[in-house]
Amino acid sequence: MARRKIYPAIYNLFLSGELPEHFAVLAVGRRNKIDEVFRSEAADAIRKFSRVNPGDNRALETLVSRFYYYRADFTQYQGYEKIAALMESLNEKYGTEGNHIYYLAVAPEHFGSIVQNLARSGLADQTNGYKRVVIEKPFGKDLKSAVELNNIITQVFHEDQIFRIDHFLGKEMLQNITVIRFANAFFEPVWNNKFIDHVQITSSEVIGVENRGEYYEKSGAMRDMMQNHMLQLLMLTAMEPPVSLNTNDIRDEKVKVLRSINQIEPKNVNKNVVRGQYTEGYISGKWVPGYRAEDRVSPYSLTETYMAMKVGIENFRWAGVPFYLRTGKRLPVKTTKILVQFRPLPGVIYYKEFSNLESNRIIIEVQPREGVIIRFNGKKPGTRNEIIPVELDFCQNCAVGEVSPDAYERLLLDVMKGNSTLFTRWDEVEHAWRLMDNISKGWQMQPPVIPSYPAGTWGPAESDELLKMDNRKWINP
Amino acid sequence: MARRKIYPAIYNLFLSGELPEHFAVLAVGRRNKIDEVFRSEAADAIRKFSRVNPGDNRALETLVSRFYYYRADFTQYQGYEKIAALMESLNEKYGTEGNHIYYLAVAPEHFGSIVQNLARSGLADQTNGYKRVVIEKPFGKDLKSAVELNNIITQVFHEDQIFRIDHFLGKEMLQNITVIRFANAFFEPVWNNKFIDHVQITSSEVIGVENRGEYYEKSGAMRDMMQNHMLQLLMLTAMEPPVSLNTNDIRDEKVKVLRSINQIEPKNVNKNVVRGQYTEGYISGKWVPGYRAEDRVSPYSLTETYMAMKVGIENFRWAGVPFYLRTGKRLPVKTTKILVQFRPLPGVIYYKEFSNLESNRIIIEVQPREGVIIRFNGKKPGTRNEIIPVELDFCQNCAVGEVSPDAYERLLLDVMKGNSTLFTRWDEVEHAWRLMDNISKGWQMQPPVIPSYPAGTWGPAESDELLKMDNRKWINP
Repeated sequence: MARRKIYPAIYNLFLSGELPEHFAVLAVGRRNKIDEVFRSEAADAIRKFSRVNPGDNRALETLVSRFYYYRADFTQYQGYEKIAALMESLNEKYGTEGNHIYYLAVAPEHFGSIVQNLARSGLADQTNGYKRVVIEKPFGKDLKSAVELNNIITQVFHEDQIFRIDHFLGKEMLQNITVIRFANAFFEPVWNNKFIDHVQITSSEVIGVENRGEYYEKSGAMRDMMQNHMLQLLMLTAMEPPVSLNTNDIRDEKVKVLRSINQIEPKNVNKNVVRGQYTEGYISGKWVPGYRAEDRVSPYSLTETYMAMKVGIENFRWAGVPFYLRTGKRLPVKTTKILVQFRPLPGVIYYKEFSNLESNRIIIEVQPREGVIIRFNGKKPGTRNEIIPVELDFCQNCAVGEVSPDAYERLLLDVMKGNSTLFTRWDEVEHAWRLMDNISKGWQMQPPVIPSYPAGTWGPAESDELLKMDNRKWINP
Repeated sequence: MARRKIYPAIYNLFLSGELPEHFAVLAVGRRNKIDEVFRSEAADAIRKFSRVNPGDNRALETLVSRFYYYRADFTQYQGYEKIAALMESLNEKYGTEGNHIYYLAVAPEHFGSIVQNLARSGLADQTNGYKRVVIEKPFGKDLKSAVELNNIITQVFHEDQIFRIDHFLGKEMLQNITVIRFANAFFEPVWNNKFIDHVQITSSEVIGVENRGEYYEKSGAMRDMMQNHMLQLLMLTAMEPPVSLNTNDIRDEKVKVLRSINQIEPKNVNKNVVRGQYTEGYISGKWVPGYRAEDRVSPYSLTETYMAMKVGIENFRWAGVPFYLRTGKRLPVKTTKILVQFRPLPGVIYYKEFSNLESNRIIIEVQPREGVIIRFNGKKPGTRNEIIPVELDFCQNCAVGEVSPDAYERLLLDVMKGNSTLFTRWDEVEHAWRLMDNISKGWQMQPPVIPSYPAGTWGPAESDELLKMDNRKWINP
């Protein structure tokens, strides 16, 4: 995490002049190494993973000269007092005035004890300078564990000091959803159940679990993707216009979406939710193993690598408009997108030439392509009155050399600014878990079998059935 | 006309298999030439002007072998009986069963006498086969002359036999306006005064009058462009959805637009209409002469080479939404487009980041580029919350080798099919002239001066003032 995302993000912020003048980085880890070795490793990581090629080695050297390393077992209190002393000296050396950001890039089981140790050692004291804590997902594994963790953290930090990262929120196109919806006169009037038939939100991966089998066995698609990223996409797409664009006004509206969702009763889980697990198959002509044959995965695993669900939002804007969400590994292509399917034409029977036309669509592409596609019907050029779907297309990262900032750059910068708009507020976490817990309960009531799908296909047959019941179908890229 | 447009259109229809099996072409002209010479001239014209390169000479030879020439003075009756005999023999030879299309590619003053002679010689008799007449613009020079001409023609032909060409109606994107508006679920809901601020319709030419000074002195921009093409663009953009897509249902709605236009009283002409005449200037760095110095143009000419007008449509859909129309010669670029400007955002003051945003736009590009552009606001990629206009763009003739059929192909085909949807019905002509006549009267009441603009600029200063009065401005390409 630190090597792939955080150090490169710091480097790119440094290059673009967005880092404050006064700053330093102190890494705490279990391995024994001196600062120079750590700096050299960090520089290597930046060279390897940065979106901007560090051609100018001087900038890179200047940056890592402010990187420090301290060896400690962060599960033990002893080290924290020394960390506090070390940070004090860095504060003096770099004029950082006691402003600390604690980035917990650790396994989630350590979040609680680290926070408690920070408090005990005085490192959470805000008398001199701000103290903020950044927490990576997963925030708990169900509602109960999330509440417990949150109780521990909030004994030490206030909500506005806690930055729960959902890195999807740092992505350009997620921020763009709010802009597209509310900074334009012609989307909002049609963004409701009078004009929209349904919405499909897809986040598919081609890769399998790779070397993360141990983590994934405990999370599955639900905890890894659905509870956080997918629901964030849903909230931004469906929320009402906020009173203002301030952090809490936006988050208030997002939470209202989660609270408006038609709760899925455990006994009805199969009518609304589909899970699946990939078996061996071919992707781009290359054979790949099934999930149960992956490293550190049980050969009897019931962990879902695919999850689809149908969500109803019970408010005046969306009543009657299903939102279909799906995410999975080992699917045919990597893509994250929101597809808004408009209602069919009113079907004026005297418009014979216009019968059986495809519905209009707006597609917001989140990754890897960042763009917007509007599909409508146009005349096919020629001397006949034929009508064909036509696509208006905008891509903001297609031009050569156009690379959007990584989500972590934006998010780190926002932590420094104390702006938590793009982070998850506690009640978002809470309501998301409540929804997921119902589904978990439903699954626990089922016989211990899980539908399968061959790697390289769009999930289990049950997933197609989910939409077929509503006379709809998944629109695959 | 015949050489540049009609013969090449016939050729392309022939190539694409859309001409009926049974057909022949008989040209009537004043010059003396034998069929072989005429065929060779027609083939040359096709080679020069066809959008498809006639690589296959056999197809071209096959086609022109059905071309015949007859020398006659069409202002004199004598020739018509011989033409009738000749057509009879061609009917027998080619099995065309008496179906005749008379294409009057002649100066407009001959329309009436030709039609009368056709009747007298029996050539308008529909007992055996249909008889249709195609009439090029201008249809009259004011309401009075148009009524007179129409009275003569309708004594011989019924309205459904009369095909008044406005070749703009044959253009792909004009036909596409109906499709875009009515074959899509998300344009029609916002296509009204609740969402649209105003509409700009522009048809600009870079060329001057070239060798058509004699014609243009009598027509000017009003009769050459505004009375026909520009009003057609207006009607298609503004009309209500027709009951069906049948010819008369569509034309009924188009006429309703003209009838709903707020008539411009002669005394108010300067508040709503601007005329101009180009003086010498530079276009693309090249000096070009002023209009009064052009060939066969009076050095004291008051003919307008530019015309702009503001039109209000007094119905529930459009009340309060001005339509600004402008057309002219020697303007900086050649383009015909409809620009629909949406209202500004509601201006929620708590959306600080969204203040002063540009309004949304839909642009329908008619020529030379055929396409649709939707402009909306999106997030500027980067770690700041900047918002920039973003364009979704669709171009149907931009790809190499994509050439839409010429308007005349579609129109000729429709004459053969007897479909007059893309032709001008008499009441359209009538109401268009009524509107223009008021403006002419207004101009006649003015002192004999005309505003000027240098070639290569966007018309006279008065044109900008017309919109400035409404706190708007022309959006130039």
